[in-house]
Amino acid sequence: MGWDVGPDEVESIALGSGILGTGGGGNPYLGKLHLLQELKQGARVRVVDPSDIGDDDVVIAVSGMGAPTVSLEKLSRGQECYEAFMALERHTGTHAVAVVPGEIGGSNSMTPLIVAAQGNVPCVDADPMGRAFPELDMDTFAIYGVSPSPAALCDAQRNIVVLDSVATPKWAEHLFRAATIAMGGSAGLAMPYMRGAKMKSTAIWGSMSLALRLGSLVRAARREKSSPIDAILTETDGILLFTGKIIDVGRRTTAGFAKGSMTILGHGAYAGESMGIEFQNENLVARIGETVVATVPDLICVVEEETAEPIGTEVLRYGLRVAVLGLPADPKLRTSRALEVVGPPAFGYDLPFVPLETAKVTA
Amino acid sequence: MGWDVGPDEVESIALGSGILGTGGGGNPYLGKLHLLQELKQGARVRVVDPSDIGDDDVVIAVSGMGAPTVSLEKLSRGQECYEAFMALERHTGTHAVAVVPGEIGGSNSMTPLIVAAQGNVPCVDADPMGRAFPELDMDTFAIYGVSPSPAALCDAQRNIVVLDSVATPKWAEHLFRAATIAMGGSAGLAMPYMRGAKMKSTAIWGSMSLALRLGSLVRAARREKSSPIDAILTETDGILLFTGKIIDVGRRTTAGFAKGSMTILGHGAYAGESMGIEFQNENLVARIGETVVATVPDLICVVEEETAEPIGTEVLRYGLRVAVLGLPADPKLRTSRALEVVGPPAFGYDLPFVPLETAKVTA
Repeated sequence: MGWDVGPDEVESIALGSGILGTGGGGNPYLGKLHLLQELKQGARVRVVDPSDIGDDDVVIAVSGMGAPTVSLEKLSRGQECYEAFMALERHTGTHAVAVVPGEIGGSNSMTPLIVAAQGNVPCVDADPMGRAFPELDMDTFAIYGVSPSPAALCDAQRNIVVLDSVATPKWAEHLFRAATIAMGGSAGLAMPYMRGAKMKSTAIWGSMSLALRLGSLVRAARREKSSPIDAILTETDGILLFTGKIIDVGRRTTAGFAKGSMTILGHGAYAGESMGIEFQNENLVARIGETVVATVPDLICVVEEETAEPIGTEVLRYGLRVAVLGLPADPKLRTSRALEVVGPPAFGYDLPFVPLETAKVTA
Repeated sequence: MGWDVGPDEVESIALGSGILGTGGGGNPYLGKLHLLQELKQGARVRVVDPSDIGDDDVVIAVSGMGAPTVSLEKLSRGQECYEAFMALERHTGTHAVAVVPGEIGGSNSMTPLIVAAQGNVPCVDADPMGRAFPELDMDTFAIYGVSPSPAALCDAQRNIVVLDSVATPKWAEHLFRAATIAMGGSAGLAMPYMRGAKMKSTAIWGSMSLALRLGSLVRAARREKSSPIDAILTETDGILLFTGKIIDVGRRTTAGFAKGSMTILGHGAYAGESMGIEFQNENLVARIGETVVATVPDLICVVEEETAEPIGTEVLRYGLRVAVLGLPADPKLRTSRALEVVGPPAFGYDLPFVPLETAKVTA
């Protein structure tokens, strides 16, 4: 089972994954151009079901690592993730039968498809987030026991660092974050390395298809002059949290992350109210006044009000008219084991996780 | 050819390498205790000539990486370098026939002997510095073209990072410095990995023997109540640069290094004069008044005036009565190619390198 990725699919996946990026994951635009170029040069990119991978087959996940604010200005050479992928094959003396998205949100939807084109391997229709997260250990692979080592990181100078052994997933994040910063703030990551059985039991299935479907629906709605936001909410069981105009943005790139907050002044049904959203690469907590209406790991998506074009935290600016959508996180991210790693306290908030469907009703 | 390392040799090497450390390389005391323990448990440690290694044989250099101020308080687990050594063997799928000292100065004289004991391999009587230097690319292996990759770094938690490919030796320093800092400021390094032919053509031969000889001479002089300082100067063609009392020390641990300066108020033949010495882990430049009398890569060794006990930059303090010795660097460090990497400008000084035998005459 599977499907081929052509130029039309690329456009839809880039758009859909931008929405799932919840402000982070990086803008897919440059990756999209790169992938379209690979297709033009004759590469065939095929997406396969997780069930198509044998239990003992080796697969390797890839993603770009770094702050979106950096990736916006420091262009990648375009080979980083594939070089890291091959470095892990060399290091382990094994051959990977497929590449897995390390994060579906944002530019990291394009990354595994580019590696699939470069390495002539299929891309698995799954990822460990169903969204984007800022840190390496914040994914279902790490949460459900896939070893973070070996892993490889490659930069634009072709410096390649391999993590041979690591005490905990947090140490993997700590060491590779330091390396990414030393590399100038962005790098290509191959991690984790795993067998098919473990990938199938821990991944969130169908994320690439979801990105494709979301993008297709939004593009169709734009053509048909229907509401792209309604299309997203229907497809994802999501909730419209707010609409308004961005009136303030504070953001700094620190310790390898884009951190900050935005304030949105309500209009329409939300006139007279204001929403504050805090982010670390991704949007983490949304409040209307003092009331929390959505928290990580649920998806807090800021999109242009008319077109549903996703807005990354690196390009937020005064005056944008936006809608804020809340999409429920995958159940694998809502378990107590997962919430220890991706719930609000993991980001330093003294808040419990309240599923957004509950929070909204309460608010 | 070769010789065995017993407890008496350990004492002498630790002392001699402390002198060659020129203030850096870390205090050999803890490493000495560890090595004596290995010998007590039956390990046999043999030092062999570089010429005993076949041209195609694989050898791996090891050393501790980090600021001496950190190593003083953050104890090593004792396996870090051997783990890094084995990680390189695994990564390359080859077996190393011997370990090479990555730096003879200070605690790094003990490190390869400990790895020799743990791995049951001989230690080569050579190193790439004949002293200690603060940065990874500052050695004759890197200067004369040995590839810095692959290399491995291991910390006390058994996190192991392998440098698979690297653009330049400077990048190796940059990336592994960042990793060492992330690991808490000290780690065990295995680097470079090389064939016997390359090691023999680029290394400084006989450094372990020199450390042994220096230590033995100083210990003999102490026993015989003759001058240990004269013994050092005669053995090394060195020069007595100054004697006096330390009256000021400024030191901070920054970006992974112990940086600072000391002021010594002269006495005896130097009464009325003062010497300033600046250091980055190791002593770099010595001035009497405004006149430069010795610069890196020549060895500027601060020792206790009576006993010739070497004083690391991490334990400098007010009131110590010291002698400052200048020992000429190995000719492999005085070539124009080497001076680009280890001359005063490489440390940010707008000074030419003047061999200390010339500087002293001029001064």
